[in-house]
Amino acid sequence: MKSLQKLTASLKRLPGIGPKQAERLAIFLLRSPQFETDNLIAALREAKAAIHLCRQCFDFTDREVCRFCADPARDRAVLCIVEEPQDVTAIERSGGFKGLYHVLHGSLSPLDGIGPEALRIKELSDRIKSSATPIAEVILATDPDTEGEATALYLAEQLKAFAGLRTTRIAHGVPLGGDLDYIDERTLSHALAGRRAFS
Amino acid sequence: MKSLQKLTASLKRLPGIGPKQAERLAIFLLRSPQFETDNLIAALREAKAAIHLCRQCFDFTDREVCRFCADPARDRAVLCIVEEPQDVTAIERSGGFKGLYHVLHGSLSPLDGIGPEALRIKELSDRIKSSATPIAEVILATDPDTEGEATALYLAEQLKAFAGLRTTRIAHGVPLGGDLDYIDERTLSHALAGRRAFS
Repeated sequence: MKSLQKLTASLKRLPGIGPKQAERLAIFLLRSPQFETDNLIAALREAKAAIHLCRQCFDFTDREVCRFCADPARDRAVLCIVEEPQDVTAIERSGGFKGLYHVLHGSLSPLDGIGPEALRIKELSDRIKSSATPIAEVILATDPDTEGEATALYLAEQLKAFAGLRTTRIAHGVPLGGDLDYIDERTLSHALAGRRAFS
Repeated sequence: MKSLQKLTASLKRLPGIGPKQAERLAIFLLRSPQFETDNLIAALREAKAAIHLCRQCFDFTDREVCRFCADPARDRAVLCIVEEPQDVTAIERSGGFKGLYHVLHGSLSPLDGIGPEALRIKELSDRIKSSATPIAEVILATDPDTEGEATALYLAEQLKAFAGLRTTRIAHGVPLGGDLDYIDERTLSHALAGRRAFS
């Protein structure tokens, strides 16, 4: 059945879907009532048509500028730099940030051929230069992995060009609810080095 | 962004896709080039249109009868009963079976309201009754879980109505390459009870 194989192959291209799950999904979709698959197709078409990148922060949006950039209550002097749009959602859920975002759309990975020009780094410089409210602080909130650290390091270096701009990195440490026994030694050494006075 | 939420919600309805992976998939699809998502939509549409159930064994097929039922080289006197079309693929991969299949499309699960009438059991009886080649053996290859065992038991009971029909169950035991230490006691007791003379 070529058409089943083609559907399975298409599903296998999605991230985190192995051959086994692709087959399961294909069979589930075949078995679903027609309106269910029609709904899925319509949702995909609609999202593709409506959603694009915010021209200021490059988060996904269905407007010209995203709801954060358009919100007068957000602090325009602080930018939080993240790798992916999902990271914006995660930080918003935390409720710990009231500034604006800048989404890089990836992290530096020389081995995969991803250099600075593949990310929204030039756009970040331009944004800081031309911002109506002067940017006082850039928080580097890239992932705490090799690529994320390298990206943070690279950006910190680049941002030195802006006199008076404070560049910070989100804290690394022991996650809340974690068990010290089960935390890897690098995290633990970060947690120790980053210790603060007890208040 | 309502359209992104709608797409994520649609993806979350797929089996084995949690809220986190649905979000990842939605963002991957938004980011994919248009032709990639068009290909996925076309593959889904095509498969939905082309594939239906074999009118004899209820496996998926894009012809009137499936390739197994249509193959004159297969042994028409032996039927292997499975729960799902994926099980047919798995048994074919094993190369251990040359008869025909009968796909139930589920297993008995009274708690979920799935009784015999929801499965292709009536069709199995009709098929045995009206088969041009008399059916000599029915192999019950339902899953080795509670529902699968209950289904096998139910079928074995029903099939007693056919005099001269042999009903068998696939062997339960230690999987090849398995480590005795790591195998649950029920499997092990099945493996012991089902022991055979060393040949």
